[in-house]
Amino acid sequence: MVRNFSTTENSTVHTVADLRPERLAVVTKSYPNINVTTDIDSIWSNAEIDAVIIATPVFTHFELAKKALNAGKHVLLEKPMTDTVEHANELIELAAKNGKVLMVDHTFLYTSAVQKIKQLIDSGDIGQVKYFDSTRINLGLIQQDVNVLWDLAPHDISILDYLIPAKPKSVQATGVSHIHNGIENIAYLTVNYEHDFMAHFHCSWSSPLKMRMMLIGGDKKMIVFNDMEPTEKIRLYDTGHSISTDEEKRRVLVDYRIGDVFIPKLDLREALGGMAKDFISAMTKGTTPIANWESGLNTIKILEAAQISIKEKGRQVEIA
Amino acid sequence: MVRNFSTTENSTVHTVADLRPERLAVVTKSYPNINVTTDIDSIWSNAEIDAVIIATPVFTHFELAKKALNAGKHVLLEKPMTDTVEHANELIELAAKNGKVLMVDHTFLYTSAVQKIKQLIDSGDIGQVKYFDSTRINLGLIQQDVNVLWDLAPHDISILDYLIPAKPKSVQATGVSHIHNGIENIAYLTVNYEHDFMAHFHCSWSSPLKMRMMLIGGDKKMIVFNDMEPTEKIRLYDTGHSISTDEEKRRVLVDYRIGDVFIPKLDLREALGGMAKDFISAMTKGTTPIANWESGLNTIKILEAAQISIKEKGRQVEIA
Amino acid sequence: MVRNFSTTENSTVHTVADLRPERLAVVTKSYPNINVTTDIDSIWSNAEIDAVIIATPVFTHFELAKKALNAGKHVLLEKPMTDTVEHANELIELAAKNGKVLMVDHTFLYTSAVQKIKQLIDSGDIGQVKYFDSTRINLGLIQQDVNVLWDLAPHDISILDYLIPAKPKSVQATGVSHIHNGIENIAYLTVNYEHDFMAHFHCSWSSPLKMRMMLIGGDKKMIVFNDMEPTEKIRLYDTGHSISTDEEKRRVLVDYRIGDVFIPKLDLREALGGMAKDFISAMTKGTTPIANWESGLNTIKILEAAQISIKEKGRQVEIA
Amino acid sequence: MVRNFSTTENSTVHTVADLRPERLAVVTKSYPNINVTTDIDSIWSNAEIDAVIIATPVFTHFELAKKALNAGKHVLLEKPMTDTVEHANELIELAAKNGKVLMVDHTFLYTSAVQKIKQLIDSGDIGQVKYFDSTRINLGLIQQDVNVLWDLAPHDISILDYLIPAKPKSVQATGVSHIHNGIENIAYLTVNYEHDFMAHFHCSWSSPLKMRMMLIGGDKKMIVFNDMEPTEKIRLYDTGHSISTDEEKRRVLVDYRIGDVFIPKLDLREALGGMAKDFISAMTKGTTPIANWESGLNTIKILEAAQISIKEKGRQVEIA
Repeated sequence: MVRNFSTTENSTVHTVADLRPERLAVVTKSYPNINVTTDIDSIWSNAEIDAVIIATPVFTHFELAKKALNAGKHVLLEKPMTDTVEHANELIELAAKNGKVLMVDHTFLYTSAVQKIKQLIDSGDIGQVKYFDSTRINLGLIQQDVNVLWDLAPHDISILDYLIPAKPKSVQATGVSHIHNGIENIAYLTVNYEHDFMAHFHCSWSSPLKMRMMLIGGDKKMIVFNDMEPTEKIRLYDTGHSISTDEEKRRVLVDYRIGDVFIPKLDLREALGGMAKDFISAMTKGTTPIANWESGLNTIKILEAAQISIKEKGRQVEIA
Repeated sequence: MVRNFSTTENSTVHTVADLRPERLAVVTKSYPNINVTTDIDSIWSNAEIDAVIIATPVFTHFELAKKALNAGKHVLLEKPMTDTVEHANELIELAAKNGKVLMVDHTFLYTSAVQKIKQLIDSGDIGQVKYFDSTRINLGLIQQDVNVLWDLAPHDISILDYLIPAKPKSVQATGVSHIHNGIENIAYLTVNYEHDFMAHFHCSWSSPLKMRMMLIGGDKKMIVFNDMEPTEKIRLYDTGHSISTDEEKRRVLVDYRIGDVFIPKLDLREALGGMAKDFISAMTKGTTPIANWESGLNTIKILEAAQISIKEKGRQVEIA
Repeated sequence: MVRNFSTTENSTVHTVADLRPERLAVVTKSYPNINVTTDIDSIWSNAEIDAVIIATPVFTHFELAKKALNAGKHVLLEKPMTDTVEHANELIELAAKNGKVLMVDHTFLYTSAVQKIKQLIDSGDIGQVKYFDSTRINLGLIQQDVNVLWDLAPHDISILDYLIPAKPKSVQATGVSHIHNGIENIAYLTVNYEHDFMAHFHCSWSSPLKMRMMLIGGDKKMIVFNDMEPTEKIRLYDTGHSISTDEEKRRVLVDYRIGDVFIPKLDLREALGGMAKDFISAMTKGTTPIANWESGLNTIKILEAAQISIKEKGRQVEIA
Repeated sequence: MVRNFSTTENSTVHTVADLRPERLAVVTKSYPNINVTTDIDSIWSNAEIDAVIIATPVFTHFELAKKALNAGKHVLLEKPMTDTVEHANELIELAAKNGKVLMVDHTFLYTSAVQKIKQLIDSGDIGQVKYFDSTRINLGLIQQDVNVLWDLAPHDISILDYLIPAKPKSVQATGVSHIHNGIENIAYLTVNYEHDFMAHFHCSWSSPLKMRMMLIGGDKKMIVFNDMEPTEKIRLYDTGHSISTDEEKRRVLVDYRIGDVFIPKLDLREALGGMAKDFISAMTKGTTPIANWESGLNTIKILEAAQISIKEKGRQVEIA
């Protein structure tokens, strides 16, 4: 963040605040011109500071962002935006009232891969999107305050929210906590939409295999996004189907067309830099950022409903 | 089946019955010594026939198997065993009463890969199994009578049932039918067990990518079974974890040990041949086959509960 | 061969000759209507036989084919065509004199992958071909009469000969024999052409990794043919270069254009069937087969020169 | 280099010399305490400087290193060491006479992958090494002063020299220059040894596929080192062979044992840091570094002979 905002046009990093002096020392070593402080409250009153970036544990987001907005600062929050929908809504109202930017660091939206997928979907190339399936698993640190969905799924949910205009109706989630503290380290989440579109998310901190893969099925073509590939992240399959019936075999025949595969070249842009630029632009030019508060809110809505579902035995929970 | 049972010791293929004469012509061309008939009922009364193999649509399994057992034949059923648990139980009772073998063609159990995994688990090498995650997706014909779970999941459920002695308590399932006939072409199934063991199955007929992958996580080591690999199907990861707490970072630390990977050599045995041999052995020597009726029944129990759950919005359904 | 020629139009398999009665028994079991004999000479005099397929060790090809051609039969030879260029030329003259088809079983030329590559090159899509690099390595039986080049390289040399109209000028080859019988089990072969086109072949019977890969570099685009991929065998890289000079860095700048990758869908045709059809067509309609005697001769020319080079310490040997 | 030597114990970066002021500005920005100069000769006379690292074009190595050694400095040279064997020998003598360390930056020798392979070979685990095959190809800048062998092969040749005690006898090389300046952009190099050990190197700046792969075949086991894999770089194949003869099939039977595959876990050490440490240790403690002058010289000997061979049509050139 410090590096990226230091090199973004119209942006100067003024102060870094952290409760841990040793972290501040690291900043000072590399960036002697940046102020450091352990007193977070000194930030709010400093008139030279226009915006704050809050990269702290989730449960602190709401209080810090509220103070920042009340002090007239623009706010960029790390994902996930807040720990509850209620908190998110309160921040959104506050930002609107004060005319300040409220943005969430959904960095993936700024990658060339997601931008390319967005373009493929918006062009109508893959037809109507019928399903979205995401797997994000590896060996990861089990966190104490949030489960694996809150930790990993914001990436994928915000991508889905960005790609697809449809709004989710309900969720069902299941999971397991292997360390018996109620924090699930493996979880599965189904999100239901109008018509026959469905999304599914598989998140795990306990897989020996590292996978970051999305399947996006259109009725004309299909996309596989494999983020573990160094360059060939996106594959566009010229694969679709038409439906007919074979009476003899008692089958509805889905006549699959299996065709060429196309691997588009992706730019080498750095996603974090694009995000920083988008935030500055929103502040200075009033543009609507890609990772806007709606993206943040929509993500939290699904996570909160998933949390309820997972604790109520996978019950279908409506999205407000 | 004809080829395999023709070459199995103590086994002779006597008659092939099929309603379609053109299919019988194919048999006759390759196997002129085998009788063929379109009159299935002629089988039951033929005293030269000791056993029948029923490879017909699922909804016909019960009636055919019942007739066969009543006629004093041993029975081998294609997977899934029957269309309901009730039907399965009735067949099981009938087989027991008549002292006949009732077996299900869960061919995968006879592959060298599954046999190797069984051995790795039974040896205690991977420790206590904590999770099982299966993905079986590709572009497949959408069937008219059963959904994708009944079509694809029997492979994976029967493997799980074979590998793990624990018995499932309940299931939750979600899915979507893109051809609006109530037959799901994509489905997700969670199976819950005692303690903190959980299994999950992802089945799809609508993926451009063909995946057949299982993750089996033990607390000492973990197994990845990738059936799309021509020879290196099994990877044993010397990866486990121990749990501690880092107060400062507010985290339960799961200290992962990431170690070597071991790819065992697998035999080139043909699974179907092993299955045929097992069936003949059960008939002639009274041995208990690997793919026995219990394996069939346990699979149906999960599928039937999944069917209910999927239709009742993912409600958790107990396994009887 | 028997199976493919049995099912090819206008083709009947009349007799199979083999010195080993047990091999003939296998044929009889599957094809009771085909005659078998251990007396090869009975073939030549049989007026019902129009053509012979010779699938014997290389050193016997010449004598057998000569007898066949003298007896007025069309001839299909397994690859490599003969053991010397002289022998090949004698057969070619004989075939021409007698007006008979002389063809070599370069099956790979009939695969959908090679046909697709041919089409990509002929369309001008990849521009001028600048290099050809082939790797065909695995763990294979070390043969007693021919080295690894004679065993494996005919596939790749005949593909190159089919794809590129240019004629080779000279070769250089190196190799090693690990069993000290003068039969190289690993060998490397460079083939030089006019202008700046070069081809290279790496063949090995001693690699734990099985690779069958070709790189074909055009100045507009490049092709990678990976025959170990089950379906995605061909990748077309939209990658080329233009040349300029950077004085400061003392470099000739080759400005690489790295673009999209395209994986064309391939038909599922069986190559051997296409070859059989091509042979029958040449016999009955006088068409020129793809795997014609020129393809066979050009392959032998390179192999013979490579043999000389490998024994003379890699000396550059001209192709006659 | 600056970063690594800055953080190595007993090492201080005193001055950076470069003819390009803009490059020095970059250094100053990140390392304000390091002196910079465009006057290289000021280095030699500075008594505070104990050692110099020469990272300049190859053709300047000799003159600069000579001045440094004459001025009593230890010297670390970028690879390849010099442009001729004669130059290398003169530097080696000078270093010996002056009692100074002369080392070459063969960074790969310090990677955990190469260290692990060294250990596997030295333990006798793979038996006697029979062949070494290296492929290092990608799309790379074509350099004006040296061909692709001088640019890429030093990595692989120095690895081979480090792994195998045997000394090369002769080389044969072929190549092609697509930009007609005599600088080969694709080249193939065979290196011959006593007994039946052979090494081969394939280097290219013109491949759309990036490969960095070594096959190392022992008579007991075989190693594949795939440096493009992020973590699973080394595979140990429990594959070997024993030799027998099958009279009937006229074959020497090499009875291959194809067994398990083992993927050892590798440390995450940074190679450049290890190299820096090794240089400092050689200077301060008199230890013999891994990438010592012998490693540099042996590499140049092969490159120089390859250069002659490639210009003389692949003639076998003896190594002095």
